[in-house]
Amino acid sequence: MSAVFLLSCPDRRGVVSATAAFIAEHDGNIIHAEQHVDGSGDEAFFFQRIEFDLDGFGIDRDAILDAFAPIASRFVMHAELHFTDELIPTALLASRQPHCLYDVLSRWRSGELPIDVRVVVSNHPDHRDFCEHLGLPYVHLPVTADTKPQQERAIMTTLTEHRVELVVLARYMQILSDDFVSEHPHRIINIHHSFLPAFIGANPYRQAHDRGVKLIGATAHYATADLDEGPIIAQDTEHVSHRDDVARLTQKGRDLETMVLARAVRAHAEHRVLVHGRKTVVFS
Amino acid sequence: MSAVFLLSCPDRRGVVSATAAFIAEHDGNIIHAEQHVDGSGDEAFFFQRIEFDLDGFGIDRDAILDAFAPIASRFVMHAELHFTDELIPTALLASRQPHCLYDVLSRWRSGELPIDVRVVVSNHPDHRDFCEHLGLPYVHLPVTADTKPQQERAIMTTLTEHRVELVVLARYMQILSDDFVSEHPHRIINIHHSFLPAFIGANPYRQAHDRGVKLIGATAHYATADLDEGPIIAQDTEHVSHRDDVARLTQKGRDLETMVLARAVRAHAEHRVLVHGRKTVVFS
Amino acid sequence: MSAVFLLSCPDRRGVVSATAAFIAEHDGNIIHAEQHVDGSGDEAFFFQRIEFDLDGFGIDRDAILDAFAPIASRFVMHAELHFTDELIPTALLASRQPHCLYDVLSRWRSGELPIDVRVVVSNHPDHRDFCEHLGLPYVHLPVTADTKPQQERAIMTTLTEHRVELVVLARYMQILSDDFVSEHPHRIINIHHSFLPAFIGANPYRQAHDRGVKLIGATAHYATADLDEGPIIAQDTEHVSHRDDVARLTQKGRDLETMVLARAVRAHAEHRVLVHGRKTVVFS
Amino acid sequence: MSAVFLLSCPDRRGVVSATAAFIAEHDGNIIHAEQHVDGSGDEAFFFQRIEFDLDGFGIDRDAILDAFAPIASRFVMHAELHFTDELIPTALLASRQPHCLYDVLSRWRSGELPIDVRVVVSNHPDHRDFCEHLGLPYVHLPVTADTKPQQERAIMTTLTEHRVELVVLARYMQILSDDFVSEHPHRIINIHHSFLPAFIGANPYRQAHDRGVKLIGATAHYATADLDEGPIIAQDTEHVSHRDDVARLTQKGRDLETMVLARAVRAHAEHRVLVHGRKTVVFS
Repeated sequence: MSAVFLLSCPDRRGVVSATAAFIAEHDGNIIHAEQHVDGSGDEAFFFQRIEFDLDGFGIDRDAILDAFAPIASRFVMHAELHFTDELIPTALLASRQPHCLYDVLSRWRSGELPIDVRVVVSNHPDHRDFCEHLGLPYVHLPVTADTKPQQERAIMTTLTEHRVELVVLARYMQILSDDFVSEHPHRIINIHHSFLPAFIGANPYRQAHDRGVKLIGATAHYATADLDEGPIIAQDTEHVSHRDDVARLTQKGRDLETMVLARAVRAHAEHRVLVHGRKTVVFS
Repeated sequence: MSAVFLLSCPDRRGVVSATAAFIAEHDGNIIHAEQHVDGSGDEAFFFQRIEFDLDGFGIDRDAILDAFAPIASRFVMHAELHFTDELIPTALLASRQPHCLYDVLSRWRSGELPIDVRVVVSNHPDHRDFCEHLGLPYVHLPVTADTKPQQERAIMTTLTEHRVELVVLARYMQILSDDFVSEHPHRIINIHHSFLPAFIGANPYRQAHDRGVKLIGATAHYATADLDEGPIIAQDTEHVSHRDDVARLTQKGRDLETMVLARAVRAHAEHRVLVHGRKTVVFS
Repeated sequence: MSAVFLLSCPDRRGVVSATAAFIAEHDGNIIHAEQHVDGSGDEAFFFQRIEFDLDGFGIDRDAILDAFAPIASRFVMHAELHFTDELIPTALLASRQPHCLYDVLSRWRSGELPIDVRVVVSNHPDHRDFCEHLGLPYVHLPVTADTKPQQERAIMTTLTEHRVELVVLARYMQILSDDFVSEHPHRIINIHHSFLPAFIGANPYRQAHDRGVKLIGATAHYATADLDEGPIIAQDTEHVSHRDDVARLTQKGRDLETMVLARAVRAHAEHRVLVHGRKTVVFS
Repeated sequence: MSAVFLLSCPDRRGVVSATAAFIAEHDGNIIHAEQHVDGSGDEAFFFQRIEFDLDGFGIDRDAILDAFAPIASRFVMHAELHFTDELIPTALLASRQPHCLYDVLSRWRSGELPIDVRVVVSNHPDHRDFCEHLGLPYVHLPVTADTKPQQERAIMTTLTEHRVELVVLARYMQILSDDFVSEHPHRIINIHHSFLPAFIGANPYRQAHDRGVKLIGATAHYATADLDEGPIIAQDTEHVSHRDDVARLTQKGRDLETMVLARAVRAHAEHRVLVHGRKTVVFS
């Protein structure tokens, strides 16, 4: 059982020393620490992830952030504190395609993804059996042009009811409104079925085939109101050739999407992602 | 010593049999044969590469295409014939950056690239020593806004003098005119310092850094008047992270460019590339 | 609906022409054809995969092999004929670990793997619910040192009952006897949790961690009596670092195993694999 | 201009804080810091790389290690201090094959590898021209069974004369004696033309071809008396297929060797490698 500080602030002399001293003074044992400085000179920005043992730590877990406040304030820090025994309450949104949804659920069940899946929401009824078999509430909210705003409100209500703090769009094919996205900054992870910013739009594998690409890709990113600007968390590609027809491109693409989304959700769930403008720092 | 047919035509019953029979009738021994059908139904298009031994073949090499003409005509084929002992006369165009130029030259010298490098053209004097050390003519054609058209004509003259049939743009930073490009269809190979169609324009590695991408890429393609439409021959990517500053991204990018360009030039030089619209078939 | 010839024979002039002519004479339309020659001179060996439309083909599907026999005989060919509408009857063998089993089943259900899964056999009861939920018979055959031979006979009986022609070892942790393996030449696909021939034995990820490797791998191969000699069908690797502890290596390894096994099963199921000694030709 | 601490010691509470405080007290600014803990409990071992600005640092560079000694002593640390403006004096050893030698030299010339190449030693005369063209002494020491010990002594003398601290075996095909290797612990980088520990011995690409592998690899490691135990610095693989004959496997292998060796030399030169038993920690 450990605690994780995610810290960011303008880079200043002494910042590493100050946080390390704070933990040492209270008899904490640092398990992992990674830091990064982006940019240089006056624009240099500091990022840090420190994981330390709660066992034997001299401050009660509820009081740590308060005790740390003077340091955070001195360095004008953005400071988050997480505990590895408190899994992030998560909702999965999916449409008809099962590959990402089933993969996240199977990794969650095997203990590989430290999230607390509370509910699955879909605009299709297809996955009800599977989800209920796993003991998960399945909320079916079909969407038409007319019902879209009201169904989005229903999603919000569902998220609130289940106290959800992370939304994973597991190939959810409905575009969410700017309002919805803005209310969950860096709390919605999307998987894009292509290599951003290439081939934005419908049928990316058809586009890739028509263009004769020799690689296809997938990108997992935080959703933002401006779709193209969402901070990228993970990306990967796979070689393809003229022998790959649209069906096989799609199949290879599904495998990529699945893998890249899982990698992004894991990084977020393990508190290894810090966002800075439209970039991320993803500690290893 | 062998001959290579590169054939393409609308897909029709019997085409494979007809070409195989032609070679068998004249006691040819097929060493490699690969074929591909793109699309289906009426739009299906057939591509084939057949490499066969010239040793013991019943027709003189100069007469083969004529003897094959009835078959080509029956299937409305585009037919090219190449001989592996006739290396493609090649010019390299480079600017200041050496990595692609030196790599192509070193692979050429080691016998890895079956091309006949005849001349190096550059708008900078930097590589003269190295090229002349290798016994290659080095044509220095500095370019300003005013002299651009006349220098391009000088390049054309140089290519004609050396009977060049393949132009490799080894990070040549001047944009060639549409006329120049159109006169050498599928005869100019360019390496693009990024992942097409992403990050077109100046400073792609700066753009990639600012965007926080987790992958960078390189694309080798035939140059066409419409830059974005050049048929892609080879692509690759490399993982990067927030730890890669612009300098290291650039370095990783150079390695990728070098590798991908070499792969594309080799495929072309070995007569393994067929162009179809804005796509390529690259046989292995 | 199409037919697939898998042919191999000593390389001789005219072999390509003979098979192409056979198909053309009976009004067959070749959809795909790939060939390969391994070695040179007297030891050159020829491999071919030809897929052609059964629609309009002049011979009844049951009579094709007989009609082809004279050609097969003339070239001393090993000839197999498959039909794409006849899926290979398949058994999956698994132990406690679910990742490969569930992945193969989910790809099979989505139509991605053209196999006909008939039965799942396991030495553990864990996956009964899941398999029966999918409508699959689940045969639980627990194994102890004493019961091993008799349980293996029970597996054989099960395979015979279900007329199984392909056995997929989806992380089946019991070593099969030489007799069992020899009775199913090139009909058992195994996934090896490492990079053959490195780290053979127990706990490969622990071994890899202790050795400080920077890559881990997975290998799918046909099982043979001599484990290290099984012809390799597919392999892949993934970068790792000192940051990956044994748990994370194992997790990454599971993803690799899953992916590589699926790739190998697909290649076999699509009749794209030819075995030659201890090597394979895997057409794309 | 900065300084780099490479530290390792048994993991103890307060170690991060102690080193950070040391730098902060003397007004140092930490530019990069990475740490790693290997193992757990009593066997946990701590590794750290800290890079800090020398500009404005309160201790003269020659006095830093002395000032740090009490901390090093308290934590039973192995402590190294490097300065980024002091490039490692390096010798390259090569045989007939040029690819690794030329690649390292070209990256060194372009400023990509922060090493100070002082001399090239070879048992063949082939590369004299090229090296002398670059202004490098070229020591030709041909080796026969009889002259081997004396030529190795001549190599040692050469290394001493040039005060060499890093030896890069750029495909040097002579086996160095245990004595030679033991005198340069973690100071000799070798590139192995295969994927360790697979295919040890002569002609690895022939072995890989005969075995029908679907991947080839290269491994860069520190040379040790026990060849198979040398701590691995970098590894990579490349997909291959039945279409790759031995010549093409060799070519792809050369590209891999070149790339992987460059990556390892760079990591060492940037003081990012710590050795622990037969493993390495390679900070990014």
